[in-house]
Formats: sequence, C-alpha cells, structure tokens
Amino acid sequence: MTEVLPSYVQDAWWTPAEGDADDAAVVRDASTGEVVTRVSTAGLDLAGALEHARTVGQASLAPLTFHQRAMLLKQMALALTERKHELYELSARTGATKADTWVDVDGGIGVLFTYSSKGRRDMPQSTVYLDGPVEPLSKDGSFLGRHIATTLPGVAVQVNAFNFPVWGSLEKLAPAFLAGMPTVIKPATPTGYVAEHMVRILVESGLLPAGTVQLVSGSVRDLLDHLRLGDIVGFTGSASTAERLRSHAHVQTGGVRFTSETDSINASVLGPDAVPETPEFAAFVRGLVAEMTAKAGQKCTAIRRAIVPAEQVDAVVEAVRARIAEKVVLGDPRAEGVTMGALASTEQRDEVLRQVQRLTDAGGELVVGSLDAPEVVHADGSTGLAPDGAFASPILLRFADADADALHEVEAFGPVSSIVGYADADDAARLVVRGGGSLVTSVASHDPAFVSTLTRRIASSNGRVLLLDRDDARASTGHGSPLPMLLHGGPGRAGGGEELGGIRAVLHHMQRTAIQGSPAMLTALTGVWHAGAPATSGGTHPFRKSLAELRIGDQVVSPSREVTLEDIETFAAFTGDTFYAHMDETSAAANPFFPGRVAHGYLLVSFAAGLFVEPAPGPVLANTGLENLRFMTPVSPGDSIRVELTAKQITPRETDEYGEVRWDARLLNQADEVVAQYDVLTYVAKDAAPEPVAA
Amino acid sequence: MTEVLPSYVQDAWWTPAEGDADDAAVVRDASTGEVVTRVSTAGLDLAGALEHARTVGQASLAPLTFHQRAMLLKQMALALTERKHELYELSARTGATKADTWVDVDGGIGVLFTYSSKGRRDMPQSTVYLDGPVEPLSKDGSFLGRHIATTLPGVAVQVNAFNFPVWGSLEKLAPAFLAGMPTVIKPATPTGYVAEHMVRILVESGLLPAGTVQLVSGSVRDLLDHLRLGDIVGFTGSASTAERLRSHAHVQTGGVRFTSETDSINASVLGPDAVPETPEFAAFVRGLVAEMTAKAGQKCTAIRRAIVPAEQVDAVVEAVRARIAEKVVLGDPRAEGVTMGALASTEQRDEVLRQVQRLTDAGGELVVGSLDAPEVVHADGSTGLAPDGAFASPILLRFADADADALHEVEAFGPVSSIVGYADADDAARLVVRGGGSLVTSVASHDPAFVSTLTRRIASSNGRVLLLDRDDARASTGHGSPLPMLLHGGPGRAGGGEELGGIRAVLHHMQRTAIQGSPAMLTALTGVWHAGAPATSGGTHPFRKSLAELRIGDQVVSPSREVTLEDIETFAAFTGDTFYAHMDETSAAANPFFPGRVAHGYLLVSFAAGLFVEPAPGPVLANTGLENLRFMTPVSPGDSIRVELTAKQITPRETDEYGEVRWDARLLNQADEVVAQYDVLTYVAKDAAPEPVAA
Repeated sequence: MTEVLPSYVQDAWWTPAEGDADDAAVVRDASTGEVVTRVSTAGLDLAGALEHARTVGQASLAPLTFHQRAMLLKQMALALTERKHELYELSARTGATKADTWVDVDGGIGVLFTYSSKGRRDMPQSTVYLDGPVEPLSKDGSFLGRHIATTLPGVAVQVNAFNFPVWGSLEKLAPAFLAGMPTVIKPATPTGYVAEHMVRILVESGLLPAGTVQLVSGSVRDLLDHLRLGDIVGFTGSASTAERLRSHAHVQTGGVRFTSETDSINASVLGPDAVPETPEFAAFVRGLVAEMTAKAGQKCTAIRRAIVPAEQVDAVVEAVRARIAEKVVLGDPRAEGVTMGALASTEQRDEVLRQVQRLTDAGGELVVGSLDAPEVVHADGSTGLAPDGAFASPILLRFADADADALHEVEAFGPVSSIVGYADADDAARLVVRGGGSLVTSVASHDPAFVSTLTRRIASSNGRVLLLDRDDARASTGHGSPLPMLLHGGPGRAGGGEELGGIRAVLHHMQRTAIQGSPAMLTALTGVWHAGAPATSGGTHPFRKSLAELRIGDQVVSPSREVTLEDIETFAAFTGDTFYAHMDETSAAANPFFPGRVAHGYLLVSFAAGLFVEPAPGPVLANTGLENLRFMTPVSPGDSIRVELTAKQITPRETDEYGEVRWDARLLNQADEVVAQYDVLTYVAKDAAPEPVAA
Repeated sequence: MTEVLPSYVQDAWWTPAEGDADDAAVVRDASTGEVVTRVSTAGLDLAGALEHARTVGQASLAPLTFHQRAMLLKQMALALTERKHELYELSARTGATKADTWVDVDGGIGVLFTYSSKGRRDMPQSTVYLDGPVEPLSKDGSFLGRHIATTLPGVAVQVNAFNFPVWGSLEKLAPAFLAGMPTVIKPATPTGYVAEHMVRILVESGLLPAGTVQLVSGSVRDLLDHLRLGDIVGFTGSASTAERLRSHAHVQTGGVRFTSETDSINASVLGPDAVPETPEFAAFVRGLVAEMTAKAGQKCTAIRRAIVPAEQVDAVVEAVRARIAEKVVLGDPRAEGVTMGALASTEQRDEVLRQVQRLTDAGGELVVGSLDAPEVVHADGSTGLAPDGAFASPILLRFADADADALHEVEAFGPVSSIVGYADADDAARLVVRGGGSLVTSVASHDPAFVSTLTRRIASSNGRVLLLDRDDARASTGHGSPLPMLLHGGPGRAGGGEELGGIRAVLHHMQRTAIQGSPAMLTALTGVWHAGAPATSGGTHPFRKSLAELRIGDQVVSPSREVTLEDIETFAAFTGDTFYAHMDETSAAANPFFPGRVAHGYLLVSFAAGLFVEPAPGPVLANTGLENLRFMTPVSPGDSIRVELTAKQITPRETDEYGEVRWDARLLNQADEVVAQYDVLTYVAKDAAPEPVAA
C-alpha cells in the first residue's frame, strides 16, 4: 500500500499510526490516474501543533527584528531555488505544465524574495512597526500620539486551495513570518504532496526557527475549535467552506481573524476603440486564451467573463478559436510541446463539466471547444484519449442575454470562459459589477477617457484592475498573476479578504495600536527619537560615532550664522536661482508670504549642512537623501539661523558594513522660530574604527 | 400622549401614522423619571431609506472632491456650534453633567472639525485616494502598479449606543461623508432625542446634500435583510447584539462590511515606581476616579480594572475614597455643583447593580461606595433620595484573587471599577491580556524600561495605550477619550473593529484596489502624473501658468550645466560644508560610494533650482518644501547636470486664492543617469493674472 503523506508538527515528521490510516484519501496523477500518495491526519494532535506554534514558534521569532526575519526569508528562497527541480517533477504529476509550474514554484520563491527585500526596505530594524506619522495631541508638544503595529500573539493557519501548492503556501507564509507569526500550512489534498516536499526542503535546510512552520497533510475538520484570540486563519478555496469557517463562534465572537480569498467571476473588458487589428484587441485575445488554458483554467483569477462591444463578439470568438487552434497542445505535461495540462483530478473535471452544463442550461452557447473527452498527447509522445486522465478542452460559451444570472454567478473552475456583448461604457461597467465582487478585471483599451471612466466605476467591485494597452502589453505580467507588491483579494464573492500588497499583508498579521505619551516615552517604546525627548549634545560629534557608538538622541547644536543680503546675492549669482522673492524687494513684499526679499530655501539647507557637518573622514559615509522638508518661516537678510541635528533612527543593514541613520534637522532663527525642518538620511559605517571602509 | 420622536428619511421628517405607534417605547428623564418622548418606527420604509441613500445620496456626494466634502463637514460643525446650547439642554435630561455633555456635543463637533482639516491636508483634491507609492512592475518603466481607494457604492448604517448620542453619530458620519458614503443614523432609544435634535440642526442648516444623512428614530430589527455588497454597518453596543448582526447571511457571505466596537474590560496599570506622592500615583488616581464618575461610568472606554503593585492596593483604595469624597457631587445635572449625573435609565441602573452583584459573588469586596440608593442633589438644590432617578454611587471592588474570571469578563456599565494587585511586570501584562482584548489600557509610570516592556507585551491586546507620567499628565486628554486622529476600537472583546484614526477611518468606507497599467493610463485615472507618461515642454514656462492654466505633465526641460571643481570649492567655502568627500581626493576615493571628490548634494539641488526657476513675478508664489529626495549617482567635477521638472499634482485650496503644486524633479547627468530625484512643493496662485496676490 502507498505510504501516507507525512505531516510536520512540533518540529518532527509525523504519519498516522499503523491501522489508523485505513480510510486515507487516495491521490492520483492527474494525467495518468496512477496512485501518487495517500493522505490522512487520523490521530494528529492539532491542538498540540497550534500550541507549539504559539509558544515555541512565537518565542523563536520574537527576538528577531523584521530585517532578520527578512534575511531568513531570502535564505529560504535560496534553499528552495537550489532544489526547485525536485518540485518541478512533483508538480508535473498534478497536471501542471512547465509554465504552470513556473508560476507555482518560481512564483512562490519570488514572493519570498520580494518580501525579504520589502521587509528590509519598508520596515524598521526592530520588532515594532510605526504606522503613520506622529500626531501632535497638545500645543506644548508634551503629549503625542503614534500608531504602532505589534505581532499578533498566536498562530497563522493557512487553509489552501489545490491549484498552487507552493505559491499558495509561500504567499501566506512570507508576510506571517515577517510579522513574527508562526505558520501552520494545511494544503489541499489533491496536491498536498508538492507542498509537503516544499516544507521538507525548508526543514532540511535547517533555516526554520523552531515551531515557526508546521504542515498538516490532510483534514483539519475541528480546526476552529482550537483557535482563539490572537490567531489568524487565511483561507483560499470555495465560498461555501469559507462561509462555514467564518460562521464559527471563535471567529464570530472569539476574535480569531479570518481572511478569505474565494474564486470569483472575474471579467475582461474590451474597449470600443480596441477593434480587430489594434494591439489592444490582440492583447485582449492573448490574455483570454492564456487565462482559459494556463493551469487548465484552475485559477481563482482566471477570466470567466469576456465583456466586449456587441459588434465585436463574433470577431473575438473567431480570434479565440484561431489562437487555441494555433497555440494550445493538450496533454501530459511531461510530453514535449504540451502547453495545457490536465485538471487536478477526474472529480475536478467532472465538476467543471457539471458547471458548464449549468451555463449552457442558462443560455450559454458553446462556441469554442467541446464537452467530449479530448484527444491528448501522452507522456511518451503518442496521441489519443486518456481514460484515467483529468483532461478537458478549453471552452468558450457565448451568452446572447447579458443579464443571465448564471453568467455572473456560476463558476466552472477549469478552462472555461463566457463571452457577452455590451452596449456602451455604462453597460460594460454594470456587467462587471454584476459579478458581485471580483479578484481582478482587465480592461484592454488605449482610450484614456474610456479606461478612466470605466475603472472608476468598477474599482470598488475589484481587488485588482489591469489596464492593458499597446504601451504596457509587452511588459504586463498578465491578468491572472497576483504580484507580491500588489493587493490580492477582492470584495463580495471574491471573499472580502486582502492578501499580499507588500507590507499591507504583514500588517494583517499584526495589531494596530494607538499610543499616547510623552516624547521621551514614545522614544523609549519605539526606538525612534521623537522631538521633545531628551537629547545628548556637547560630547563627541555624532558624525564621529560609528553605528556601534551612536545613540538615538545624539545631537549637534550648531552656533548661529547670520544670513546677509550679500549671501543671498552670492547664492543667486552662483546657482542662477534669481527668483524675484530673493532679488526684488518690491515684488517680494507684494507676495502674500514674504515680508520682502528672503533667503532661498536651498541656501538655508546648504548653510545648515555647513553648520552641522564634521568634515574629516569618519564613520559617516554619505548623505543619501532628505525627506519631508518644510520651509516654515521666511528668513530675511540679517536674520540668523542655527541648526539642531539629532539622531532619530538607526538602521544597521544585515548584509552590509554600514547602515542608515536618519537625523532630525531643525533650523531655528534668532527668535527660536522654526525656519525649516526635515530628515537627513545618511549611510554610517558599523565598525568602531573611524576610518571609512575601503572601496 | 407625548408625541413620537420623528425620523428623517428620504429627505423628509416622518412619524408613524395615527394608531401605529400605540406600543411606542417611552423615554424618561434620567434624573426625574419624567416622560421625555416616545419612540417607534412602526410602518417606516427602511428599505426605501437605504435605497434613497444608495441612489440620491451617492449621487450627491460623487461629484464632490474630498476637499469639498471636508468643507461641508466644517460648515456642519459651525452650524452645530451655533446651536449647541439647545443640545446641552436636552443632554442634561439624559443624566449628563456639563462636563459629560461637553464630551458628547463639543467632542462630536470637534470630530467634524478634525476630519475637515485632515480631509484637506491628507487627501487629494479628487475623488480617488492614492494608497501608497508607485510600485514598478517592469524594468523598462512601462508597467506600473498603484493602489487606489474608491467610494463603496452603498450606504453606511450606524447602529449606536446610548451613551454619546451626538459624538457617537458624528464620529461615524464624518469619515463616511468624507469617503463619499451617505449615512443612516440609528441612535439608541434612551437618548435618541438628542441625536434627533442634532440631525434637525443639520437639516435646518440646509447644508446636507440630498440623501446623505437620514435618521431612524427607533428599532431596525430586520435591518441586515435590506443590506448588500457595498453597504457598511458600524455598530457600537453590546457584544451579544454585535454577534447577532455579524452572523447574518448578508455579512457572512453577502459582502456587507461590519465593524463593531463593543464595551471592553479596560485596564489601568500603576507602575512599580509610581509610589504614593509621585506625580504618576496622583495621575493614576485622578484618571481612575474620572473614569468611574464621568458619564456615570457609562463609557466603553472606562477603566474597569485597576492593576496595581500588590503592596499599593491599600494606598490606592484610600486615595480613591478620599478623592471621591472630596470631588464627587452626585445629582441632577441641572443643579449647581453636581459633578456626577444619573445613569441613562432606571433599567440601566438595575442592570449595573446586577453586574456588581456578579462581581461580589465572584469575590469582589466592596471597598468604596455602596449598592444602596444614594442621596443626591435635586435640580432645585435640595438633597435627598431620588426614587424615580437612575442614580448609583461610584463603586470600587477589591479582588484578592487576581485570576477570578469575573474580574476580567464581567462589565458593570456604570460607575464601577475593580482593583487588583500584581506581582511583577510579567504578571501585570498577563492580567491586562486576560481582558481578552480591550479598547484602551493606561500605564502610569515614569520608568521607561517598565513602560516599554509592558507596552510591547500588551499592545496586541489593545486598540489604544495611554502612557501617563509627569511629563504628559497635564496635557493628557485622559484614558477614556477617543481622539479623532487616533484609532478607536480594539481586538477580541472590544469588538475587533477600527474607528477614527484619521484617514484610516475614511478608508474603511472605501475599497482598496490595485491598478496595473502604463504611466499614461495611471496618470489619466488618478490625475497625478506618473513618470514615463507624456509631458508637455517647450511652450510657456510652467512657472508662468496659474492653477487655471497649468496642466499635469507641463514640463521644464533645462539646458545642461557643468559642475566644476571650482564650483565645489566655492560652495564648500561659501556654506562651510567641507565634508571630505567633496574636498579630499584620496579620502573620497577610499569611500565605498564615491569615485573621488564629488559635488555636494545640496549644491546639485541648488543648481537644479537655478536651472528650472523662472525668476520674474508670476503665479508661483513660494517653494514650500521638498520630499523624498534621493541622491542616486555621484557627480564628479566635469560632469554635467540638467533637470526635468514636471507638474505632478495640482491641489487648488478650497479656502485660499492659491493651491499646492507638486513637481516631479529629476536630475540627470551627461550619460542620462539619474543623479537625484525628488518632489518640489510650491504654492501657485489660482487666478489667471500672472501678478502675485497682494500681501
């Protein structure tokens, strides 16, 4: 008997005891029907696994900063890359072509790389994330507000769909891990063996901190009973399962966070300008056929509704038919030249055909493809029927009645789309919205007015909108591809959840809290200096301190420097900036903001640098930028300025011998009014030696 | 018979038909028991009201920009301010003292003012909100990602609690209105007459666009049956009602957004350093007594658990007793000198006493106050029992067993707190977290290490944490006060929702959508220029164009200018910035980022201004700042720079004769490498005349 697929719980591999797994589910090769594995969790201590995550897993991640977690993600991505051919081989058994596998495996690894880099670029070298700016709460500056995000104290449980066993696991793992939450992965049975092998590679890499990743290979029927406040469930799959999970008391009143991403009736709209022969028409047809055939249409983002100008329906049908005839080779993904594989299982194929039947019953006319069992290319290159394989042809259904409910509500989760005509932009928008909330809609048009009007109308019904035209068609990543930096999820039928979207997904695994306090307490809590908190000046110039020596609050208080009329004129002549407010007393005085001629803003920040810089070689390596500069009080000839420069945030880099230091710069005049304030960004060397790193 | 309180639906006042309201609920004065009004919605067309909002209300708000909606909020605030004394009088009938009323009425008006100002400062002069930065999706820049937020297409329904009839309505109305969503207010029966009068003032002001505000004075039992995807419910009240609403099919699977804010068992922690005689001890006791007595303790944010070092329990109890004796005068709010009013109704008082009984049954020892009917000051100044008034004494219960479940779970929604001792910081954190999710916890301590450790531990269980010490105690707005710029809401028992928090609350009323497209299409859709989109240069210098003439994409392409070694030396001598990277060839070359001596970053941006400025008086009034400056390629002596300055975003002010123009600035060298990029911020006059506005 085939071995039962292992789970990985409490940092050890686990399979059911002898005899417990007699009724294990049997998983078969999608193309051949050969048995691949069996799946059972009979006897698994799920509660123990969850508690292991909450204790051991949380304890493993808590001491690591966002950047350290991000580095681990990168190393995990590298470990998977090294052995990805093993995943490719397994993936082919699920019916996935090379291109499908690339989306799943390389796409999943890509999510880890992206989150690793986003984590280091967009999050602090800390365990507390600052959300938004300081909110002043009192006039005297002694009472401030700040939003922070901290790790949820529980476990992130993934309940995944069968279509992308690697990507589906990693796209949820990456943000949870970055947030500091341990993960329990629960793959879908038909393709769980690919997820198992992915977890196996990670375990064997030795990179996983204890308790941070566990795998439940099989059913978790009473899962919600074991979850509680601080835990989160990320569900991908059918709306009915989502409903059952979401209605559990622990979600309803227990505070378990639940996000769901369910299949939706996505649309693609062809603009009225995009007539045949235009690049947009071609891009539209390419996209439609790609979405019908990639992963054999088993994608929650696939195009289910092609919404085209009524007069173009025939042309689109013809173009789709031609492109399928030219490009699509259906068969075992292991055979050379195959471009479209099998569905995940024969059960899945039968279900798709049932839904197609519902669509035809509702008025859908089958204009491309057939319900008959297709001839396919076998692994050995021969051609014929595949009685044990889960194959189906690409199918396009034409609806004469654009308002047929089934068109907007029935999903055949396979290589199936419908096409329907629209009258005008209003009608097109109305039809898109009838999907009741979608993951994605694409719009193929080169007419900015049409695109803009339609998109504003349909945006609130979609998690993502792809605008496709001649300018971006070549570079476009396609209708069906969620990207780690962009939101994935959608309202209504699409599940109402949000995944990915860069750091947004990390924050879904954290609690946002408003903190009110004095500048000193906010500084202590966040590790970021807040204006009004104590500062240290007068000792060693902070530019002479390496990252090892520099402390938040280290400050330069400069002497004053008078700004003379001669300075202004010299600067104007030197830079060529002879704007009248600096050069012409009468015109300047007529300006509503100036008392008369005033110094250039750029002169002030340049003088400020002269006042705070310590010139000799030392740990400060470069001024890399400046942020949030505001000029607040004009400086007239004869006024004096001085600067307070305070170390605000220190971010050592994980992979370099230096890090970023953000300085709070405040220019004041002789009356102690703030003339300008901004953040100065620098690179500073890590090591104590004051000599710069050699080139 | 007392008249039935009107509703305001479909832009008209409505009361039940003669005879329909026979079983209307009777509402009484909290202090005297006198009948104030009757409440019934028998026969009200709720579905019609909701549809009116979705059609007429949405159509009223859709054409208005965020800034225009914000201006209306300000005018509404002014209209309410003018007649707020009318609200004060009604509010007194609910048992609210002058201070309580100030929180409700002036606090509510304050939310409108804050959202008006946040809306104009933090949102664009547009109907589409840009969420986060541009995400590059292709190497060639032809394919970009951007997140936008657009108005949800439905209605925002408020289901409010009785304690703050004005604030509770306005804190939800303001962000919904700003987002472009019409509102239906459903106040709680006992104090709905105050909300009704608030709506009446708004209606009579003539400021409300048609269909944007409706009021349902009474029950809305089948409310959820009438809601659908695109609608949102903002609930405040009991956890059990929240559960009932949240489990409705239209929320579970229909996509109706549901946010809830329920009463929680909030805590206040006294630090080990905050011994008697410290300012923190005093602030802690002041806060505790304030939260027990303000609004007679009927606040979802009130302190229910005082968590203090075990050895300080006695001292705190004594101090609370003393402060209550000294400060608290219980009575009819219309009497002079009264500092604590009645509960909202005798039913409410009875319910509070029942919950106190549960707490004492669970081991709570009554150490301050009494369950007996208190003597109170009547409106005429006399003193005595008030048999028809809903009065209760402030009550403090001491728990010897810190782990008693009731302490952390039972809420007496009145002037009732419990006190319990803790052993150490770990224990204090554990006790706070046992509340199962709270709206707010305060921490009174001047020890940054204690505050920091405790806060990081408890933050994920709280929506807000107040850090109270000698530095901010005077300016602090207090434990119990949600502020419009800070998040209000909390996890778990607190309802799991988020309200307020500035623009965050506006976005809860909008859909976030990822848009992928070419720079030109993103520019057309958002009204903000995206690098790579077409630009217009060569005609009139954009600095000579007023806001009326200037267009997104108007561009200055400057000539080149060589940067010489002499320039660098001149600039160094002039500004005093003699940093070695500019002055010392050997040291500069040893720096890992520079090939040798390089130009100052500030020199480059100064030269850039010289290259793009058009000096004569004209519509450009001032350079107000600069954002997101990054130096990307060092400039060596002999290199040349040129600048492309492009109008990126144009924001006319609603209340001034000028607006902000944000320019995309890009410095390039002779090899077309980007040397620096940043946004230049300016004020530009609205009017076509090129002359500046007179001072």
